[in-house]
Amino acid sequence: MATTTPPSMTSPTPPPSVRGNFASDYSSGVHPAILDAMVRENTARHVGYGLDTRCENAAQLVRQATQQPNADVHFLVGGTQTNLVACALALRPWEAVIATQLGHVSTFECGAIEATGHKVFVVQSPDGKMRIPYIERALRENVSEHMVLPRLVYVSNTTETGTQYTKSELEELSAFCRAHGMYFFLDGARLASALSSPLNDLSLADIAALTDMFYIGATKAGGMFGEALVIMNDALKPNARYCIKQRGGLLAKGWMLGIQFEVLLRDNLFFEIGAHENKMASILKAGVEECGITFAWPSASNQQFPILPNAMVTELAKDFDFSIIEALDDGTSIVRLCTSWATQEDECHRFVAALKRVVSSAVA
Amino acid sequence: MATTTPPSMTSPTPPPSVRGNFASDYSSGVHPAILDAMVRENTARHVGYGLDTRCENAAQLVRQATQQPNADVHFLVGGTQTNLVACALALRPWEAVIATQLGHVSTFECGAIEATGHKVFVVQSPDGKMRIPYIERALRENVSEHMVLPRLVYVSNTTETGTQYTKSELEELSAFCRAHGMYFFLDGARLASALSSPLNDLSLADIAALTDMFYIGATKAGGMFGEALVIMNDALKPNARYCIKQRGGLLAKGWMLGIQFEVLLRDNLFFEIGAHENKMASILKAGVEECGITFAWPSASNQQFPILPNAMVTELAKDFDFSIIEALDDGTSIVRLCTSWATQEDECHRFVAALKRVVSSAVA
Amino acid sequence: MATTTPPSMTSPTPPPSVRGNFASDYSSGVHPAILDAMVRENTARHVGYGLDTRCENAAQLVRQATQQPNADVHFLVGGTQTNLVACALALRPWEAVIATQLGHVSTFECGAIEATGHKVFVVQSPDGKMRIPYIERALRENVSEHMVLPRLVYVSNTTETGTQYTKSELEELSAFCRAHGMYFFLDGARLASALSSPLNDLSLADIAALTDMFYIGATKAGGMFGEALVIMNDALKPNARYCIKQRGGLLAKGWMLGIQFEVLLRDNLFFEIGAHENKMASILKAGVEECGITFAWPSASNQQFPILPNAMVTELAKDFDFSIIEALDDGTSIVRLCTSWATQEDECHRFVAALKRVVSSAVA
Amino acid sequence: MATTTPPSMTSPTPPPSVRGNFASDYSSGVHPAILDAMVRENTARHVGYGLDTRCENAAQLVRQATQQPNADVHFLVGGTQTNLVACALALRPWEAVIATQLGHVSTFECGAIEATGHKVFVVQSPDGKMRIPYIERALRENVSEHMVLPRLVYVSNTTETGTQYTKSELEELSAFCRAHGMYFFLDGARLASALSSPLNDLSLADIAALTDMFYIGATKAGGMFGEALVIMNDALKPNARYCIKQRGGLLAKGWMLGIQFEVLLRDNLFFEIGAHENKMASILKAGVEECGITFAWPSASNQQFPILPNAMVTELAKDFDFSIIEALDDGTSIVRLCTSWATQEDECHRFVAALKRVVSSAVA
Repeated sequence: MATTTPPSMTSPTPPPSVRGNFASDYSSGVHPAILDAMVRENTARHVGYGLDTRCENAAQLVRQATQQPNADVHFLVGGTQTNLVACALALRPWEAVIATQLGHVSTFECGAIEATGHKVFVVQSPDGKMRIPYIERALRENVSEHMVLPRLVYVSNTTETGTQYTKSELEELSAFCRAHGMYFFLDGARLASALSSPLNDLSLADIAALTDMFYIGATKAGGMFGEALVIMNDALKPNARYCIKQRGGLLAKGWMLGIQFEVLLRDNLFFEIGAHENKMASILKAGVEECGITFAWPSASNQQFPILPNAMVTELAKDFDFSIIEALDDGTSIVRLCTSWATQEDECHRFVAALKRVVSSAVA
Repeated sequence: MATTTPPSMTSPTPPPSVRGNFASDYSSGVHPAILDAMVRENTARHVGYGLDTRCENAAQLVRQATQQPNADVHFLVGGTQTNLVACALALRPWEAVIATQLGHVSTFECGAIEATGHKVFVVQSPDGKMRIPYIERALRENVSEHMVLPRLVYVSNTTETGTQYTKSELEELSAFCRAHGMYFFLDGARLASALSSPLNDLSLADIAALTDMFYIGATKAGGMFGEALVIMNDALKPNARYCIKQRGGLLAKGWMLGIQFEVLLRDNLFFEIGAHENKMASILKAGVEECGITFAWPSASNQQFPILPNAMVTELAKDFDFSIIEALDDGTSIVRLCTSWATQEDECHRFVAALKRVVSSAVA
Repeated sequence: MATTTPPSMTSPTPPPSVRGNFASDYSSGVHPAILDAMVRENTARHVGYGLDTRCENAAQLVRQATQQPNADVHFLVGGTQTNLVACALALRPWEAVIATQLGHVSTFECGAIEATGHKVFVVQSPDGKMRIPYIERALRENVSEHMVLPRLVYVSNTTETGTQYTKSELEELSAFCRAHGMYFFLDGARLASALSSPLNDLSLADIAALTDMFYIGATKAGGMFGEALVIMNDALKPNARYCIKQRGGLLAKGWMLGIQFEVLLRDNLFFEIGAHENKMASILKAGVEECGITFAWPSASNQQFPILPNAMVTELAKDFDFSIIEALDDGTSIVRLCTSWATQEDECHRFVAALKRVVSSAVA
Repeated sequence: MATTTPPSMTSPTPPPSVRGNFASDYSSGVHPAILDAMVRENTARHVGYGLDTRCENAAQLVRQATQQPNADVHFLVGGTQTNLVACALALRPWEAVIATQLGHVSTFECGAIEATGHKVFVVQSPDGKMRIPYIERALRENVSEHMVLPRLVYVSNTTETGTQYTKSELEELSAFCRAHGMYFFLDGARLASALSSPLNDLSLADIAALTDMFYIGATKAGGMFGEALVIMNDALKPNARYCIKQRGGLLAKGWMLGIQFEVLLRDNLFFEIGAHENKMASILKAGVEECGITFAWPSASNQQFPILPNAMVTELAKDFDFSIIEALDDGTSIVRLCTSWATQEDECHRFVAALKRVVSSAVA
């Protein structure tokens, strides 16, 4: 991908480093093509708070990519902010979100949804994917004004386990939500990886057609920051800017968001970055499989979750950054290896080589 | 100030434009020294969410500049977000903010404070400055559990009218708050302009010594975004990161905030930018005064509020961007002229010349 | 009114007491006719949470009295609870209430509305009555997503100053609200007094026709507790019980509310109690006027607000309970004399006699 | 009315009725001894909002019964209100409640806790009782500012399944909470039944010594309404009345609460009512066991949960009111039989007889 970098740009090549970095997809800076555009346009003057021409142009690109000429598009800075704005926008106080126990809104947002007054009704899912029986159960358990009123189904794609939805799965969920008067919202923090995965059969247009609202994540796709909230359902359009402002989500120099999405959505960069992340992850995955190591969840995206003996974890942590998700009872741990726009092929190979060394010495 | 720009940088000179821009201090991009640092450090890898070395270094610079070695420093993206986080962090549900009717939290944040559950008890102030008698009245009017419990006094410096606080004024307010068990919080969105104004006798260290919490604004001082929340009061320190995360204010690539504050606080750039803004505004002010035109409020900072006949407003609006604050009953309007890091001396002189032309033709 | 007491009842006559009680209209127990019904029906079994036959019957009486066969009626325990439920039911997070500075929701509910996330936008009114120019100003000052969106106009009848609305005043406010897409809500905590005042030309049916929601107060009209929230606007009807339950306002033994409203609305007791309160207050008012003492606000209802020299206040406080509303700068205070269903004619005359004594000794 | 009351227990005789009522413990009116006191004291005048002598006296009785001379006692109207006030009083926005999936706050309060902004972190418990390993897991899963901060452990006694805590169980939970800086709160909506059960070894004083806050429920123990919130922890005492007022929980004629608790806590009536409820339930339980029918949960309190074939449920429902808790997959249902202060021995025997008839005809 380095070949797409404009010549004027500072080289994106990371300094030689002993450590390989699989810690997260937001631990490297900005994709050079994006940063270059931000620099080039820095001298222009703009109206504030997202009413500028860059944002309008980026919104138009989103409308084209989603085939939704009437969609409302709002650019926010981060994922938790976008999720809490979406829920505050859609729900009355007694209405609840349905999410799996691994959903970002259930667990990793410090009660942000509850802080807007809404319950997140948690359903259990082995792989983090939402399925109709879980929703049915939530509806069966909430049947009067003594319970909350489930109103919005939250899914993320990819999910927090690296798994992803097929088109037919989203179609079923969408139809079910519509039949039951519920909103269907998709968190696309890792949508670049999802839509570029070999397992993917979804397009941005499909997602827009099947959901009431969703967002396209730039933070984990090479952006400096930024999530584009796309609203198709007319009932959710009015006063969204009030909701965003009230939650502190209206960026003063909003065109910095617009510029990033312009670059991502023009010339396919968004999907190229996703494909790069997935390709790097596939090297890791193949190496793990060659070692006969299993995964906690099957993932074809930029997050891989091998289950490693704790001694191996300790050994690998000497040279590589990654996360320990959960220590299991049998002396192994679920580990997360996460790739980003900046992951180098070389560091993936180094990881695989190191893993093989550790495995063989463990065997020996 | 252009001379401080490193040679490697894209020129900060705006393209020749017919229109002069006094619309706001956040309508131009990023000061080149800041953007340059962001570009130079783009290839480095960092831990996310503000736990990186750039943020720690910037926090250390804040601690030095404020002479508060034990201060907690948190970097947030925008002003409304910072204000709502500060109030949510400080207050129990029944506790209220005291602010003037012109305070940013009273009026311009779409009820963000109320959305965290807290009343903003509004007191009237002719020039937007908080004074002890106003607070005393708020305390006198709220005396039992049937009313709210006023607990945090909010001031901004400069205020929304361009006025500012002297050291003795802040000392009195601070002493009063401490004597009455109230928190004293200063919104420093325009602190660069305030502390660089000819009327100023305050330092960052003074403000830190006199308040429980305050913030240093970068958005309106040449940053891309960013406000540094500085907490001196030990009671307000625990769990601030929880509060920030819950409100969607924890930036994933947090080092982008740290870098900006490093540049601003190293080598005095923060104050240079404030001084530049004020100097540009002083040209406008002198021109307005020469024309015998009065101001709604006396300001020595980067916002000037002349009262102009509506016909003049229409005429000037042909070539210049500025805001109409309030249409008065007598056919005049209060107008805001606002300068930024990017305001050019030339465009100020052009405005003054245009004003003189309009005035003389009105007289003729 | 003692004559309406059923013979079986415990005597409502208060024990002879040295002190006269004008402290409030909720400082005496329950009107005997109401208490008698509660006792008589105590052995019946009911479904919980307001779904019982007593509540349904009381709701039907409300629908008849208001000539609103399709109104939804909900019985809540207290006024603050009802106001906060009404606002939470009507408003999206960024929408605000407009109320005068004397409105109960503005001042005397410990920020209950703000605790549901909504700003109360306060407008100044000399006598506590809402008027169209105040609303217009609120609309003029809130014009974009940087400000809140005013959406519900709150009035109380009688107001907190004892003043009240005429039919034409309510008609104008109602028409204005409808023309501007705002909800019109009337707090009827003291509606019994208002509708029984000599100045009144409104009926329950008028109020129902002119507002979107209002409530009929029983607590200050001889009930043990209870406010009947009446919803005419179809948009506000869905899920009101969810809203009430969520705010802790669904009484388990809900029929205790229904019974009280049955008694109040059958046989005109509600209006008789209001008339009694007003008649008692008119004795006080006439006595005050005879002494040449002026009132802070003109009231023909059960609250009277004479302005008394502080020495007189001290003297009268020896034998009578009443409230000091505000100490003025000139050595006088605004005092509130409040009558209830249980106020005795005799204690009113005693107050007047005492006042005359105090006045003449002050003159002498 | 006192004359109709038998010496030990005021007569609860309901009118002869075809239907037996095991629907709930809040579907009958007020215990005659309580109602009698409310009637007798109706003529007295009081200060409003719980500052009266009756409430002070009742609070004193609570302090004596709990052996907590310094406890703060507040009287609220209902259970959901009390739970939400307790959580709002104890928690900062990012702090969470830990409760089991059957906890009243988790499920049956329409998201009331979330509406105050707090997450209820749900842990799974087969019988609804809280245990240390569940809390440990909650702590293990919430370890940084990306998750909530668990701060208050919620238990109810009896629980929602009729089970109850032993003294040693509460001691362990209490010690664990204190060791981990968490508040321990006990919902005593059914405390009368719990403390009068044959399995009980707890006193009010034990509960007060082991928790930070708890409440004593009157609604389900013969009261018209009312829950006494008892606060031992000094950190939770300040400004509780603000919190109660803000949530609409301050009853205007507050002495109506005080009177009820005076009667309940004087002369042991609270425990007599609990014992009566349990004795009635034990008749049902014995009858169910004689039929060889099993229970979903083991209960020695006033709620019994037999698992009945659906055909039997239909048959019994012709003559008796009770709740169906859950329809199981095997053609049976968990049913709740709930007794109250007003349950008659005769109707319990009638139920047992009916059950035996149904069982034997099913066998035949």
